[in-house]
Amino acid sequence: MVDSVQFYFDFSSPYSYFASFKINQTCESLGCQVEWKPILLGPLFNITGSAPLNTIPMKAEYCVNDWDRLARYMNVPWVLPKIFPIATQVAARTFYWLHERDHELALKFAKETFMTYFGHGQDISSSESVVGIAASLGVCDVELSFALSSETVKERVKYEVQAAQDVGVFGAPYFIVNGEGFWGSDRMWMIRRWIERDGW
Amino acid sequence: MVDSVQFYFDFSSPYSYFASFKINQTCESLGCQVEWKPILLGPLFNITGSAPLNTIPMKAEYCVNDWDRLARYMNVPWVLPKIFPIATQVAARTFYWLHERDHELALKFAKETFMTYFGHGQDISSSESVVGIAASLGVCDVELSFALSSETVKERVKYEVQAAQDVGVFGAPYFIVNGEGFWGSDRMWMIRRWIERDGW
Repeated sequence: MVDSVQFYFDFSSPYSYFASFKINQTCESLGCQVEWKPILLGPLFNITGSAPLNTIPMKAEYCVNDWDRLARYMNVPWVLPKIFPIATQVAARTFYWLHERDHELALKFAKETFMTYFGHGQDISSSESVVGIAASLGVCDVELSFALSSETVKERVKYEVQAAQDVGVFGAPYFIVNGEGFWGSDRMWMIRRWIERDGW
Repeated sequence: MVDSVQFYFDFSSPYSYFASFKINQTCESLGCQVEWKPILLGPLFNITGSAPLNTIPMKAEYCVNDWDRLARYMNVPWVLPKIFPIATQVAARTFYWLHERDHELALKFAKETFMTYFGHGQDISSSESVVGIAASLGVCDVELSFALSSETVKERVKYEVQAAQDVGVFGAPYFIVNGEGFWGSDRMWMIRRWIERDGW
């Protein structure tokens, strides 16, 4: 019996954005919760020698087209932001800070942040942008701005990235189902089957 | 209307091996032929800065497990060969030489070569091994051995690798449907829909 699935993502990862529309329905329809866990791909790419997809010859062109056709197929808003990829520390810090207070609010914030960046092509890297998104969801901007300068909040993200690495996460989206890792938004079918049968 | 799909693969690519079991059925059920096109990933990896999956930290462990569970799920023979990856020039040369004579025989040779390497873990890099596989299918070993030393046969593979690169192939398996590229064995569903609707 699988109780929960961990969904590791970077707010600047297009395939994570696409997966974010599907993972909750996939898991919840099987009685399983999803834990959203924003991470930072930069430190993980340093280990694998990987790089942002749009900086890799040939792959870049492929991916730009792939994101466009995936968005059309899924019928979700999509724009390749002018500045891409982007630093997502502030968004990740805000997520975990909110999550300690209100899980549902953190989830709403994550979805709104993804939509701001990949749905509308607007910045999500600056404190100003991120606080603006949170404020639109009713979060006190003064309190959040103060929190974002705290070392504890910064350390939390570092901790989560290290913890993700420790369980094998090297890219995004990455999912863990009872200790079993699944990499990529194309593996939703496999996650579903793994939950249903607890492996095979 | 899609008449044919190009299936680019390297005989040393596990995900190509898995795709090889599915692509013909997927396409032929929609009235579409499949052209198998062996290539060499080495020159393409030099462009993208990529490397064999089992040499990349973290990804290696993931992939070894992923290949194992995919084989169990698909119920196909699987062994990670002791020497992996392996040079596949000779196998590719043999394929194209056979293909000029008999398309069906070339296809049988490709399937048998995949099975020899990933199904039984046996060598497919030496001329001796490859000629042995072809001979088991009724090919004259003397004639093939002679052909494999010809510059024309060697040049054909170089030509095919360059031609693949020219149409955007940077990894394997890679499929082209009416000019549209699809990378990875996870994209069978997308290829199917693209053939059915000629895009979307």
